Amino acid sequence: MDRDRILLTPGPLTTTLRTKLAMLKDWGSWDGDFIAITARVRERLLDIVHGQGSHVVVPLQGSGTFSVEAAVATVVPRDGHVLVPDNGAYCKRAAKLTQMMGRRATVLPVAEDQPISAEAVAAALPIDARTTRFDALIAASGKCLEGVPGMGFVFIRQAVLDGCAGHSQSLAMDLFDQHQYMEKTGQWRFTPPTHVVVALAEAITQFVEEGGQPARLARYAANCATLVDGMRQLGLKPFLKPEHQAPIIVTFHAPAHPAYDFQRFYQAAKRRGFMLYPGKLTTVDTFRVGCIGAIGGLEMQQAVNAVGETLREMGLTTAPA
Amino acid sequence: MDRDRILLTPGPLTTTLRTKLAMLKDWGSWDGDFIAITARVRERLLDIVHGQGSHVVVPLQGSGTFSVEAAVATVVPRDGHVLVPDNGAYCKRAAKLTQMMGRRATVLPVAEDQPISAEAVAAALPIDARTTRFDALIAASGKCLEGVPGMGFVFIRQAVLDGCAGHSQSLAMDLFDQHQYMEKTGQWRFTPPTHVVVALAEAITQFVEEGGQPARLARYAANCATLVDGMRQLGLKPFLKPEHQAPIIVTFHAPAHPAYDFQRFYQAAKRRGFMLYPGKLTTVDTFRVGCIGAIGGLEMQQAVNAVGETLREMGLTTAPA
Repeated sequence: MDRDRILLTPGPLTTTLRTKLAMLKDWGSWDGDFIAITARVRERLLDIVHGQGSHVVVPLQGSGTFSVEAAVATVVPRDGHVLVPDNGAYCKRAAKLTQMMGRRATVLPVAEDQPISAEAVAAALPIDARTTRFDALIAASGKCLEGVPGMGFVFIRQAVLDGCAGHSQSLAMDLFDQHQYMEKTGQWRFTPPTHVVVALAEAITQFVEEGGQPARLARYAANCATLVDGMRQLGLKPFLKPEHQAPIIVTFHAPAHPAYDFQRFYQAAKRRGFMLYPGKLTTVDTFRVGCIGAIGGLEMQQAVNAVGETLREMGLTTAPA
Repeated sequence: MDRDRILLTPGPLTTTLRTKLAMLKDWGSWDGDFIAITARVRERLLDIVHGQGSHVVVPLQGSGTFSVEAAVATVVPRDGHVLVPDNGAYCKRAAKLTQMMGRRATVLPVAEDQPISAEAVAAALPIDARTTRFDALIAASGKCLEGVPGMGFVFIRQAVLDGCAGHSQSLAMDLFDQHQYMEKTGQWRFTPPTHVVVALAEAITQFVEEGGQPARLARYAANCATLVDGMRQLGLKPFLKPEHQAPIIVTFHAPAHPAYDFQRFYQAAKRRGFMLYPGKLTTVDTFRVGCIGAIGGLEMQQAVNAVGETLREMGLTTAPA
């Protein structure tokens, strides 16, 4: 059977057929039809964060990390200083890219199972974090908007971006220039990933049809509840406390059994139609299961069933079937 | 009629349906099936340039310019000095990105209609260019391999790359790290544009089936000849001398007529099914027509016919119909 497996991953994730079908056409990057799609995507992205009037959004080729690096390079002056609250691998990556490009970065260590508190940030800064406005927010096409991977986008407060000329030491990642050029011509400065952009436009249409952010959050929250409840019944415990758990991807403690091996566990679940994700913690053995993508409660329950079968097959059962 | 228009552009270009159909599936970036596709793409790319044994190839998210910037950042030491022979906009861009990242760049100006000679480069260097081996070569998915846009790749001589640790001031663009990580895990460091990669794999399969580089070059050369001959009969002259013209994209002088306007000309050709491309020269009014993509002599002749009709419609005819 060549039915596609379901990606229980943090993106790339499972997209709808409608989104993928949008890629069955070639687009001229310079053409008015594609310019209109770029404009519409940017407009809708700003709508989603209620940023019209205060912020702009600048799309960028590449993965989310490219947009993170571009945002730091563009927004932070060359002699600027960045505070990076660090409760995991992606925070360490942000600190590293900040230092590599020659900006100062101070890391504020936080435990991997703890959220960042406004108080801890305020204590580490000379200024009060509670009154500091958020100026830049970074996201990517292949995450909760359920597009395909290949581009990121950065929301930046207009008044902040206005002062960012000449900050970036990278041409490709200069969001000030990218924004100026896009405002003037409607085009991307360098060849855009046309099929990825068009798929994102189609994915956003479906996001709106579903009911926007509240409906998407409700579906993901229900997915997460079905997953966590089912896994608990299999004896598998989430790494985070429930009050810290976002309904995006759930980190579970690996079964405490000598026969457990992630690769075998992964392959057995894949044979049953579900792609899980490895853990990213250095000190604790974990694996991850995504709740996002074009999936609902049905798929989440099937995933729990597949994990249950896998545990029994591998002799890892720690709870009654 | 919603038949797709033909892109006579330098990439994004017209791809085959088979290539686009490869995007109708979601791929886990961490999964073995996708790792195998990445490995196969890299192997085939090396085969195409006969680089096995001497070079490696490092793919990178983003457009070709991202790969150009990454190659300079990775290969050139932070106190390095780059000579940029400059005969047009893309050379100026390479000089700019080199200077922005803090490397020294010296520009060697060459006229826009002239090729770069080895002698001129040798004269500008303290060393002899004729004995200097080429260490890095940059290309992108959406060009003559006829994939969709969204990633580039850099061929780097293995012995050169071995000495490149710590050169890059950019995390996302560090090709040394990208290569190390890919060799170790088979994976991309950051989320790859999965659908773009899979489409490139499918496009390369068709490239091989067509007969590889000689067959592809022969088709493009025939496309170019059909185009240039037909346009000459319409009174439209190429900007470059025939001996300098590569069969990729042809720059034509704009019709020397007061009624000529590129936007109107473009829209009229588009209505007839063909997307042309604007010129990129600063001193001369030109437009461009691509010869590349999943198109042959039939499409090129139809394009010439469409341009002829357009010229007559706009009253620009300078030769008998």
